[in-house]
Amino acid sequence: MGISPLIDSLVEAFQVLPGVGPKGAQRMTLHLLQHNREGGRRLAEVLGEAMSGVGYCSQCRNFSEEDVCRFCADARREDAALCVLESPADILAIEQAGGFRGRYFVLHGHLSPIDGIGPEELGMDMLTRRVEALAPDEVILATNLTVEGEATAHYIHDLLKDRVSRITRIAHGVPLGGELEFIDGGTIVHAMQGRRNFS
Amino acid sequence: MGISPLIDSLVEAFQVLPGVGPKGAQRMTLHLLQHNREGGRRLAEVLGEAMSGVGYCSQCRNFSEEDVCRFCADARREDAALCVLESPADILAIEQAGGFRGRYFVLHGHLSPIDGIGPEELGMDMLTRRVEALAPDEVILATNLTVEGEATAHYIHDLLKDRVSRITRIAHGVPLGGELEFIDGGTIVHAMQGRRNFS
Repeated sequence: MGISPLIDSLVEAFQVLPGVGPKGAQRMTLHLLQHNREGGRRLAEVLGEAMSGVGYCSQCRNFSEEDVCRFCADARREDAALCVLESPADILAIEQAGGFRGRYFVLHGHLSPIDGIGPEELGMDMLTRRVEALAPDEVILATNLTVEGEATAHYIHDLLKDRVSRITRIAHGVPLGGELEFIDGGTIVHAMQGRRNFS
Repeated sequence: MGISPLIDSLVEAFQVLPGVGPKGAQRMTLHLLQHNREGGRRLAEVLGEAMSGVGYCSQCRNFSEEDVCRFCADARREDAALCVLESPADILAIEQAGGFRGRYFVLHGHLSPIDGIGPEELGMDMLTRRVEALAPDEVILATNLTVEGEATAHYIHDLLKDRVSRITRIAHGVPLGGELEFIDGGTIVHAMQGRRNFS
């Protein structure tokens, strides 16, 4: 039993957020009530709107409140390269890094038969249609370097290999500033296998 | 520029929460969109309700959506002791610790002339009225052990000393399980000054 029934409900509701437990939820609740009710009201409004209004782009399955997302709608982006990703967060990571100006396709997950996630759930039909419509020179497989991500990349490679002239996988190796001494063995194996001519 | 305008707004709105920066807000947004829209909708609803519906108890200034909060309305609690606190979170801490069955009064802060917070902002008039109505045997000053908390405790002592027979301050000293070796000097001074007969 906490301060009041409504406050108890809010403390509980905040715990749907990732990484937020009872203590953090209590802190959030009291902070907003004491210091920022206006901000709390705005959060409630935008959150409600987003939960109902955000759907999926009809071309690339990215989150979007429009039929076509901002990346597919942007005429200045190049159709020559299509990058396939597991999640919309990965788009943000690539955009923030800069340098890529092509198109995206979001799988929203990876193949995982044990969870009932097969090609259909990942929109492989839509990916095939997208590849046919864009006719990219290259499809970049940027799924994660996990067993499931690798399996998904292999599946997509087999699916598209007769439709696209070049299918690539993002490089895996030692990160910028990484010191060999502290890098895990798996990464070092990838770094060695992926070595290139010194230019 | 993020995934979509509505998602950008939500990522920004989440940053009103304490301890939540751009990365955390992005994680919360995508997590709810991907895994728990129902929970997100419920959070939006309860949050909106709480921001508008939670006011202050007319007797003790605790947060409450009713005119009188659950602690003041509870007939089983004792009027003999009134505990004065800086924040509603302190009520929760005392309730969770257990053992206290008296009444509360919440200041919502401490005296801080530099921020324009004087006796009026802390509801000292209301505290006086509450003491007159309850006629407690004891007022326990449980403001924090900071310069401002101490100044506030002194102010309340002077305000109430002719109205209440016993005014006490919560003990400050070595916490349970604390090892002297690792305790700060200020706490040790308090622990020495507050020493009691060994029984």
